[in-house]
Amino acid sequence: MIVALAGGVGGAKLADGLACRLGRDLSIIVNTGDDFEHLGLHISPDLDTIMYTLAGIGNPATGWGVAEESWSFLQQIARLGGPDWFRLGDRDLATHILRTQRLRRGERLTSITRDFCHQLGIAARILPMSDQPVRTVVETTEGPLPFQEYFVARHCAVPVRGFLFEGSAQAQMTAEIRERLRGADLEAIIICPSNPYISVDPILSVPGLLQLIEERPVPVVAVSPIIGDAAVKGPAAKMMRELGFDVSSKSIAAHYRGLVDALVIDLADAALKPAIEAMGIQVRVAPTLMRSPEDRRALGDVCVEVARALIEEKRLRSVP
Amino acid sequence: MIVALAGGVGGAKLADGLACRLGRDLSIIVNTGDDFEHLGLHISPDLDTIMYTLAGIGNPATGWGVAEESWSFLQQIARLGGPDWFRLGDRDLATHILRTQRLRRGERLTSITRDFCHQLGIAARILPMSDQPVRTVVETTEGPLPFQEYFVARHCAVPVRGFLFEGSAQAQMTAEIRERLRGADLEAIIICPSNPYISVDPILSVPGLLQLIEERPVPVVAVSPIIGDAAVKGPAAKMMRELGFDVSSKSIAAHYRGLVDALVIDLADAALKPAIEAMGIQVRVAPTLMRSPEDRRALGDVCVEVARALIEEKRLRSVP
Repeated sequence: MIVALAGGVGGAKLADGLACRLGRDLSIIVNTGDDFEHLGLHISPDLDTIMYTLAGIGNPATGWGVAEESWSFLQQIARLGGPDWFRLGDRDLATHILRTQRLRRGERLTSITRDFCHQLGIAARILPMSDQPVRTVVETTEGPLPFQEYFVARHCAVPVRGFLFEGSAQAQMTAEIRERLRGADLEAIIICPSNPYISVDPILSVPGLLQLIEERPVPVVAVSPIIGDAAVKGPAAKMMRELGFDVSSKSIAAHYRGLVDALVIDLADAALKPAIEAMGIQVRVAPTLMRSPEDRRALGDVCVEVARALIEEKRLRSVP
Repeated sequence: MIVALAGGVGGAKLADGLACRLGRDLSIIVNTGDDFEHLGLHISPDLDTIMYTLAGIGNPATGWGVAEESWSFLQQIARLGGPDWFRLGDRDLATHILRTQRLRRGERLTSITRDFCHQLGIAARILPMSDQPVRTVVETTEGPLPFQEYFVARHCAVPVRGFLFEGSAQAQMTAEIRERLRGADLEAIIICPSNPYISVDPILSVPGLLQLIEERPVPVVAVSPIIGDAAVKGPAAKMMRELGFDVSSKSIAAHYRGLVDALVIDLADAALKPAIEAMGIQVRVAPTLMRSPEDRRALGDVCVEVARALIEEKRLRSVP
């Protein structure tokens, strides 16, 4: 059993690569800090990106949304004078409407997600980080902005100063997450190449979750979302700069220091290996850019291999 | 100022014909007894049919829904295991989602409908019969069925015994309807060729509405939805049979006896004229089948003409 932590597009790709190999033996804890209410609907962007990707119905061009999407709804919303800044596709809407209806009936986001995954033929378990609302707020030079306003409406153009995960103190770890993180069959934890600040940190902000990971004697392997001095996708590099960090996998290592046992960095960053190892983090150099399904599976294999090597290493050390 | 009462597709066609001539001088009071909640959305089938028709974006093939509709949402709902028995098109969804969101915020159906009409460039005023929920329940040989279950899910296949308009006792006439029915400029009231039992009667069940119509000394002109022994569309003829009435415009006349001053019947039913006139109802024989926009306008003109003739007749009678 492997548990992955993941956010949006990059996380979804690695999760998909892992799922191809592990199937039911993979559980993915997904960021819900980007969730928001729009047009009266509960939208869970990261859950959906991962769900669509693993179901093989994701839009390969954008990385988010459903393939062969149509946009009639959004056109009509504009015609009726409604807000069309958040791009809701016609197929995608089915998820939001069914989910919203079930949430209003008092069902848990975890159960709803499980049913959707079952319908879509996904063997891996996709677990929202909490059933309670946690909302990422971006602290910017213009003051705090709800995440989607920063990300979609403002195109990440406002410099960031920090992040708040509203509601995280009251959020509870779900029974499903607790069970998996405590499970005797847990082999490793993999942190996907998602944005550390707005995809992974919100997950780790759920009370007890980080502690549970740290307590377990299983390897934690992260994949850096940075290649050279750029993020593969999204605002991670821009955020690092604005927060005063070098845009480099070294900064990712520093961010996860104390939590991860190993970091997978890209071939292009091989020269960073000694500096990261000096932080007490093992380094694996591998191709981390995932352009094809094969790339996803290969990177997934690398992560599992690194984790298993760490287990073996520990086993050897423990032999008297 | 003319006030029309209307339900679904037939009503929408005549309302459209009247609107072409009258524009802002037309107010249409619309049945909301068919409204229901589906997938957490408030659906108002008759309001929408009339709104789309008057906006010129209605689907000419079906009479309901939006032209050039796409069905991606419904396909995905099925894929996710959701209910797909009620056909919600992608464009149509924009109306339901915006309306539901605004209703949840506490806005009135009347105000929301006004804004949609404004956005869609509709000059006539479309008025829901009430802002409170009134729900048509069909009493059948199998017991009471909510209207949409009878109509869509059961395809009207269950014999009817009667109708209940749940909530009508608590429903209030809106200020907008009261103002129009009391207005000094009210010239006539036109009952569109809608189903009398499930489109017009629910409107008349709103407390005070029927009384207000009866009190006003303005002509009330109805158009029969029956031609020969069949309804132009929908279950009206089937219902008449099951309720024990002859399927005939004579039965329509009997149904509206005491309320209407004149009934417009089809050329095919010219022979019924004496029998209907014997009930104290004036009869105008005209083509009532509306295949084209010209047909709609022509029938609208007939109604206005009949109403104006009644006004003139009364004026002459009142001359000492």
